[in-house]
Amino acid sequence: MSDATREIEALIDLMARLPGLGPRSARRAVLHLIKKRGALMRPLADAMAGVAAAARECLNCGNIGTSDLCGICTSAKRQNGQLCVVEDVADLWAMERGQVFAGRYHVLGGTLSALDAVGPEELRIPKLRERVAREDITEVILALNATVDGQTTAHYIAEELEATGVAVTSLAQGVPVGGELDYLDDGTISAALKARKTF
Amino acid sequence: MSDATREIEALIDLMARLPGLGPRSARRAVLHLIKKRGALMRPLADAMAGVAAAARECLNCGNIGTSDLCGICTSAKRQNGQLCVVEDVADLWAMERGQVFAGRYHVLGGTLSALDAVGPEELRIPKLRERVAREDITEVILALNATVDGQTTAHYIAEELEATGVAVTSLAQGVPVGGELDYLDDGTISAALKARKTF
Ligand SMILES: [Zn+2]
Ligand SMILES: [Zn+2]
Repeated sequence: MSDATREIEALIDLMARLPGLGPRSARRAVLHLIKKRGALMRPLADAMAGVAAAARECLNCGNIGTSDLCGICTSAKRQNGQLCVVEDVADLWAMERGQVFAGRYHVLGGTLSALDAVGPEELRIPKLRERVAREDITEVILALNATVDGQTTAHYIAEELEATGVAVTSLAQGVPVGGELDYLDDGTISAALKARKTF
Repeated sequence: MSDATREIEALIDLMARLPGLGPRSARRAVLHLIKKRGALMRPLADAMAGVAAAARECLNCGNIGTSDLCGICTSAKRQNGQLCVVEDVADLWAMERGQVFAGRYHVLGGTLSALDAVGPEELRIPKLRERVAREDITEVILALNATVDGQTTAHYIAEELEATGVAVTSLAQGVPVGGELDYLDDGTISAALKARKTF
């Protein structure tokens, strides 16, 4: 087998590790890339290298950016006072696509899980307490997935924040039982945010 | 919106152009890559850049390699005399996975199509005639997809080669009607090759 094939096989193996791509679709994707190596493969490799070098987690909220504090945390255009708590950066992106939330975010990095031994310290929950105490927060909106672990985590955070006097609300109508934010359309997210209720 | 987000959005847009990935799965893939930027994203960017720089079509058979002649065309281990004609490099890869063919290949680069105005000159058919005349070929195995265009192309090539006296065979049992080689399991391809019949 030639070096060419080994190089291409190595690329296929790496591509197959992406979510949503198996070995077969990875092969098809690599072949497509090779056919379009000037128009697609080279720009994609460059973009990937650029993001790999620049991307980092925001030290404040856990969002992804290119500096220690993300664009949302540092933006003067975002409204102070409201913090939207999400499980994952994908959920933050889903909220942003809805374009109905003007406040800032807090990305937990997962949910509490007894099964997987994920406690509050494994998530960004201590940091959330710190932000609520330090920043001028009046409302914490829990935009967690409507799963058992998501709702367990929401209850835990609501209790944790009870003594601080901050209003704790959660996304309400529109989030189907068992549904995950990242799979909802923008309109559903928008409706759920507008109809949010006190937790 | 920060530069970070624009860089990441640009990467998502490029990823969404891969076959099998839509905007949503491209976002998930990019997020996964960012989370694993050391272990996966950086190696993937490097592998992609490497293949983009090195890959080229074999001048003889149309296979993908890193030099003017591919590893299969130049390998002394491949048997002379048999040429397997396929539509696409993906089909060549599928044949190779079966590990039952020891000869060499000829990649047409598509099929004849009246609808899309693809004639013999748009494919590697003149080159196939040249190889049959120049190389010591005794058998041309037509491993084309069992689609209308694939079979039209097979008939055309069989007629073209009739005067040369070379044996023209085609994959037989095992290839389902309307089936595409790249979607078949290795056992099916192996059976079809062994039971090949004179075209
Ligand atoms: Zn931030
Ligand atoms: Zn070749």
